[in-house]
Amino acid sequence: MLSVNRNIRPSGLQVARTQHVRFSSSKAKPRVVILGSGWGGYEVLKRIDKARYDVTIISPVTYFNFTPLLASCAVGSLEYRCALEPVRRYTPQARAYQAWCDGIDFEEKSLNCMPATPPLPSAPHLGTRTPFSVPYDKLVISVGAYSQTFGVPGVKEHAYFLKDVRDARAIRTRILECFEQANEPLMSEEERRRVLHFCIVGGGPTGVEFAAELHDLLNSDIKRHFPRLAPLARISLYDVAPKILSMFDEGLVKYAVRTFRREGVEILTSHHVERVEAGRMYVKEQGEVAFGMLVWSTGLAPNPLVEAMKGVERDARTGGVVTNGRCEVVMRGGGAGGDVWAIGDAAVMEGVVLPATAQVAKQKARYVAGRLNGMLEGRDVGRPFEWRNMGTLAYVGEEQALYDRSQAKGGPKTKWAGMVSWVLWRSAYASMALSVRNKILVPTLWLVNWIFGRDLSRF
Amino acid sequence: MLSVNRNIRPSGLQVARTQHVRFSSSKAKPRVVILGSGWGGYEVLKRIDKARYDVTIISPVTYFNFTPLLASCAVGSLEYRCALEPVRRYTPQARAYQAWCDGIDFEEKSLNCMPATPPLPSAPHLGTRTPFSVPYDKLVISVGAYSQTFGVPGVKEHAYFLKDVRDARAIRTRILECFEQANEPLMSEEERRRVLHFCIVGGGPTGVEFAAELHDLLNSDIKRHFPRLAPLARISLYDVAPKILSMFDEGLVKYAVRTFRREGVEILTSHHVERVEAGRMYVKEQGEVAFGMLVWSTGLAPNPLVEAMKGVERDARTGGVVTNGRCEVVMRGGGAGGDVWAIGDAAVMEGVVLPATAQVAKQKARYVAGRLNGMLEGRDVGRPFEWRNMGTLAYVGEEQALYDRSQAKGGPKTKWAGMVSWVLWRSAYASMALSVRNKILVPTLWLVNWIFGRDLSRF
Repeated sequence: MLSVNRNIRPSGLQVARTQHVRFSSSKAKPRVVILGSGWGGYEVLKRIDKARYDVTIISPVTYFNFTPLLASCAVGSLEYRCALEPVRRYTPQARAYQAWCDGIDFEEKSLNCMPATPPLPSAPHLGTRTPFSVPYDKLVISVGAYSQTFGVPGVKEHAYFLKDVRDARAIRTRILECFEQANEPLMSEEERRRVLHFCIVGGGPTGVEFAAELHDLLNSDIKRHFPRLAPLARISLYDVAPKILSMFDEGLVKYAVRTFRREGVEILTSHHVERVEAGRMYVKEQGEVAFGMLVWSTGLAPNPLVEAMKGVERDARTGGVVTNGRCEVVMRGGGAGGDVWAIGDAAVMEGVVLPATAQVAKQKARYVAGRLNGMLEGRDVGRPFEWRNMGTLAYVGEEQALYDRSQAKGGPKTKWAGMVSWVLWRSAYASMALSVRNKILVPTLWLVNWIFGRDLSRF
Repeated sequence: MLSVNRNIRPSGLQVARTQHVRFSSSKAKPRVVILGSGWGGYEVLKRIDKARYDVTIISPVTYFNFTPLLASCAVGSLEYRCALEPVRRYTPQARAYQAWCDGIDFEEKSLNCMPATPPLPSAPHLGTRTPFSVPYDKLVISVGAYSQTFGVPGVKEHAYFLKDVRDARAIRTRILECFEQANEPLMSEEERRRVLHFCIVGGGPTGVEFAAELHDLLNSDIKRHFPRLAPLARISLYDVAPKILSMFDEGLVKYAVRTFRREGVEILTSHHVERVEAGRMYVKEQGEVAFGMLVWSTGLAPNPLVEAMKGVERDARTGGVVTNGRCEVVMRGGGAGGDVWAIGDAAVMEGVVLPATAQVAKQKARYVAGRLNGMLEGRDVGRPFEWRNMGTLAYVGEEQALYDRSQAKGGPKTKWAGMVSWVLWRSAYASMALSVRNKILVPTLWLVNWIFGRDLSRF
């Protein structure tokens, strides 16, 4: 449940003296180190010339999360592995360590890392508890952000996030567990209603899409197999702001709200969650609210690595590391080095307001990989990064989606809501799936689950 | 890891007074209760006439494990859900409780059950901690057996079993973790060899097939993506007996041993494991043996429910509940009632020696369901159960399998080893997959993983 903590090294480990790693085998090649395997890091790993650079990726997980499909995975419309791409696909062409980066020495051009694998019983003081340092010539910082909780007590302990495939698995398991609990023979109607109340805090695209997917699950497979319990289930979507989906066009938001109302999803805007406990939360406007599951998705908090980074400029509002218009990290008291890049949710570009989305991270990653590859051939001219807004998609349930291109650069300023957008939503994500493997599996599983229903087993 | 304990209720729970469940809605229909959702219980659930019987299935898990595919799932050749069939497929036609049965009152015809779902925070003293009793007219006991450890200390704590899809997931995660551990930069060669030593105790079909599948994984995807580490990995297969696969024809066993030798799997028969600790075990013939993972598969131990059952005859050797030749439980001091049936690994049939296999459990389940359905129409003549030996299949790696029909009843007394058997092995299991859904997904995933390689991510 504590997905927000997964990147934090467990405390109390006996830490040995840092040892230095030298990659003597390929001294001639410039060493590129990529930190993180999200939208930014994985795209750089994919696109960088691994034959001519000595590439190392360091990430506490061994996979890339295809985040737009996590909500589908969390309700069983897709399998978890469809929303993953393994870092190992690119080894041994690149080197990969499952490790946390704890600190960066920009002077020495060296990273301080700690293995993210458990210690060995045969060598508990050595091996995987030993910090190691990794040298770099070029560094790409794409460590992402953490989940924002606004300091509300109990969120980390009792709420589910939806940033990682492990979160999706935990949520799916919990949804089905709620129904098995409610199905126990001696439960009162009141207790059943409590455990079948699904609360979502955060009316951004993640919260909205999860509410939509959950509604679909409750109204299809759950209704079919738990017909007495399904009418007792309820979905409530909370936000502190006066409206949901603030980044979408007003007309589309109205469409979403109407759709949710028809679906029976309760939208509680301008509501403030003050405290969360096991099975209940306290809302300023409502008092105590019992729930079976709470999903929390209220935006991003700074990554501890970025917070601890010395010698760089940090954005006052988001805490992100500041880059110039060419994704190069701005060093405190003097220009950008050109050897250190930052992209994705961990980075903020000077003088431009870009949303913290996968789209931006991926485009910046392509830009950085393109420039790094260009440098090898002396054809990098330092053309600044330009974001191409492709529009925004959001699923709102019952085969209806929103597609907003009103802010898009170039092309038609389309604003669509309905089933056409949904078809677009599905095909966009099916085709964006990075690997051929998932390009086959995603539509296959959608089809199989559509025909035969989602699997309601949990294990 | 402690799969052997999953069916045991956590101790220290505050237990309320047992309450009685009455199914008033369908009083007219005879009440059939099925205990367990394995090969026996799930097959009865599938085949029994749910329109004319009031059917309840009680099982601590919500799915059926298609056990022959678990070894494939444990190395990533298949996905976990391919080896599952959900109990919920048959609700609401049947009633399903995720619960343990703690005791049976054969006089009162009533079962004492405890919910297997966690307690609710809103009602910790009620709801899911409350034992409940379920009445029956006909009872099918198909609770299976536990994993045998022969009392070797440390097995339950430090070894993996392979009886459930959760075991398969834990094993897959651990295999990949071993390689990520060995991949950490500062590990010595010696430490790497230790953590890449995979030990399997038990030379029956489960142990042998897992060794074979693991060999295939190490020699394909692991070799491709961890080329420096793959040569350090080793598989050792232990058994106390002087030979492996004792139920197979002598010639086929020799073929298996030759195949394993060529593959580099070390077979250590007549070896005795005396104690297991974290990362190491003590073998009488070898002394201390370090391992990265230990899989334990040395047969079956009695189910605690069966051990605690009063008023029935129990088999002296296996501890199973004794039935007559018609799968009816023999009551102590006088005949079989005819209302209580026992099948699968929990049951032993008087006067016949049948192997404790899925094949026998499934055939007995069909027999019992057939008789129960026949009783509704007054056409049950009590014809005794007859086992039809379909032969035995085992995969030994590198697309080679064994197929032994030398003991089969009727048909050709075939004994095959090689790729033809492997094709048969694959098609048998693809076609035996119970649902159409899995009939589609199993071959699809085999194909996708064969083309693109197994996914080496773990989460």
